Amino acid sequence: MASEVLARVIRGETVESIHRGHMIVLDGEGKTVASVGDPRTVTFFRSAAKPFQALPFITSGAADAFGYSEEEIALACASHSGEARHVRIAQLMLERCGLSESHLRCGSHLPFNEKEAERMLRSGEQPTQLHNNCSGKHAAMLAFAKHIDAELGSYESVDHPVQQAILKSVADFSEVPESDIALAIDGCAAPNFAISLEAMARSFINLIAPSKFDERTRTACGRIVSAMMKFPELIGGIQRLDTLLMQVAQGEILSKVGADGVWLCAVMPCEKWPAGLGIALKIEDGDDHRARPVVAVELLRQLGTVSDQHLAEISPMPIKNRRGDLVGCVEAVGVRL
Amino acid sequence: MASEVLARVIRGETVESIHRGHMIVLDGEGKTVASVGDPRTVTFFRSAAKPFQALPFITSGAADAFGYSEEEIALACASHSGEARHVRIAQLMLERCGLSESHLRCGSHLPFNEKEAERMLRSGEQPTQLHNNCSGKHAAMLAFAKHIDAELGSYESVDHPVQQAILKSVADFSEVPESDIALAIDGCAAPNFAISLEAMARSFINLIAPSKFDERTRTACGRIVSAMMKFPELIGGIQRLDTLLMQVAQGEILSKVGADGVWLCAVMPCEKWPAGLGIALKIEDGDDHRARPVVAVELLRQLGTVSDQHLAEISPMPIKNRRGDLVGCVEAVGVRL
Repeated sequence: MASEVLARVIRGETVESIHRGHMIVLDGEGKTVASVGDPRTVTFFRSAAKPFQALPFITSGAADAFGYSEEEIALACASHSGEARHVRIAQLMLERCGLSESHLRCGSHLPFNEKEAERMLRSGEQPTQLHNNCSGKHAAMLAFAKHIDAELGSYESVDHPVQQAILKSVADFSEVPESDIALAIDGCAAPNFAISLEAMARSFINLIAPSKFDERTRTACGRIVSAMMKFPELIGGIQRLDTLLMQVAQGEILSKVGADGVWLCAVMPCEKWPAGLGIALKIEDGDDHRARPVVAVELLRQLGTVSDQHLAEISPMPIKNRRGDLVGCVEAVGVRL
Repeated sequence: MASEVLARVIRGETVESIHRGHMIVLDGEGKTVASVGDPRTVTFFRSAAKPFQALPFITSGAADAFGYSEEEIALACASHSGEARHVRIAQLMLERCGLSESHLRCGSHLPFNEKEAERMLRSGEQPTQLHNNCSGKHAAMLAFAKHIDAELGSYESVDHPVQQAILKSVADFSEVPESDIALAIDGCAAPNFAISLEAMARSFINLIAPSKFDERTRTACGRIVSAMMKFPELIGGIQRLDTLLMQVAQGEILSKVGADGVWLCAVMPCEKWPAGLGIALKIEDGDDHRARPVVAVELLRQLGTVSDQHLAEISPMPIKNRRGDLVGCVEAVGVRL
């Protein structure tokens, strides 16, 4: 089945560009509540896999052995903006297990936060690996490696025990056999996982309602979900989609974007959906900033989980010219429950 | 007719994202040489309309009355990168007609050239309207307005004589009646034009082979085409698609990108195509940096107009992680003559 048009970019009164994609909403029993395009489409989980990459760090006992805080667990699941507090927590995470920035293997890039990136450029400050949006995830991988006495210098290699445990975690939660998961290298040099959108949505259902798993895993899931929702400002940052959504949803949803147009969301168990919902969206062209936010907001609006008024603060997405005049907009289309 | 897949983004060995679009190649008689997707798709011409926005500046006699050079005519057709020479020429264009940066109505943005943008941020230098990629176009509009004694403060308004002359130019060359052209505001605050890709390709055929037009218009077309091909480094800048393509093609093609995934190209009359070719491409999702360059290069490769070796220097498009390791690529698909 082909992708469907999910967003239109309109200049004046004329459609200039369109974004297509796939989407699925699963309920707690794994039943499809809504589906657009082909949710069997396989693509990379990217950063939306972070909760599952953080799980073995907790289930192995590493998090507790070193005494990691809830904020630090949140940052392990984050694609943070490199704001001062994000960098500080990432550094503390490394210090907590006796390591430093030089042990990271994620590479560096300027902060996603534009003001912070500009400030660093103006002051001649070079970005370090701590500014990498995945530094919390990598720090947790290192802590896990140290806790199990594994080699530290190759913790991001696909055959390293840390990455093997993570692959098992992704397989267990997505219910896709390890042998059916295609691997490739993510932007931060760690392995990433190609599975269907349906399997991604299932992972998020299993994360918020992990009844199929042993008690240690269930407890770890609860700690991850709780940390992410308690510290939305650590999961992304100022003006970032996950942060905005979780701030206005106040404990009703768990939101995690992935690069190249991926968005995962779980609606927590509530009256309407007693076992919650798992949502997976992929903008097929990889768009992160035009289609993804308006489609995510429109879907949540239709689900009625977050108040219209709160969502209106996030969307719509205006198109402005270089003088700041409003010249168009991006609108969601084709989202239907 | 629907768009077709034109590029695949591959991570490891798995397709992560796809880009769709429309494309048409017309020969000098207006016959379709190749077509992918639906070339009747209407979208905005964006900066690929710049040669037609510069035409009345020449045909009105403004360019000669003020003594504009060939480089300045090239910059009037440019989406430049805000490099030092671009900014200098834009300023000279304004001075030549007794005006200054403050007369521009295009707004400002940091240079497209990343090194220059970084340098300015580091030194605390604010971008001016001269750094706007459209400053040459706007300077030419102002010179034209001054030459015809029109009001200067609203030269970018859709009902201003300058913009009315430009609309007529776009209508004449695209062979679309003015009343059928939807208008909207471009990123630089000037009006822009929604027409079909087929009509855009026709415009470029008419630009390089303007036999239907009067002598003054034919001469102006020749000057624009010649200036753009003689100074490719002014049309875009370092590492920009138009500049790279025209540098390696050495007078065989005229290339002009437009924002939101638009690319127009004319193959100059040669043995194989005695009246030349007009090419129009739109990546439907507006992609400028992944699909557009690889599709443009693949099309030119198949046309055989530019040597494979030269094109290989421009494409393929690698996907690298933050450490600089090669982790994937973007490949053109579905381009066929």
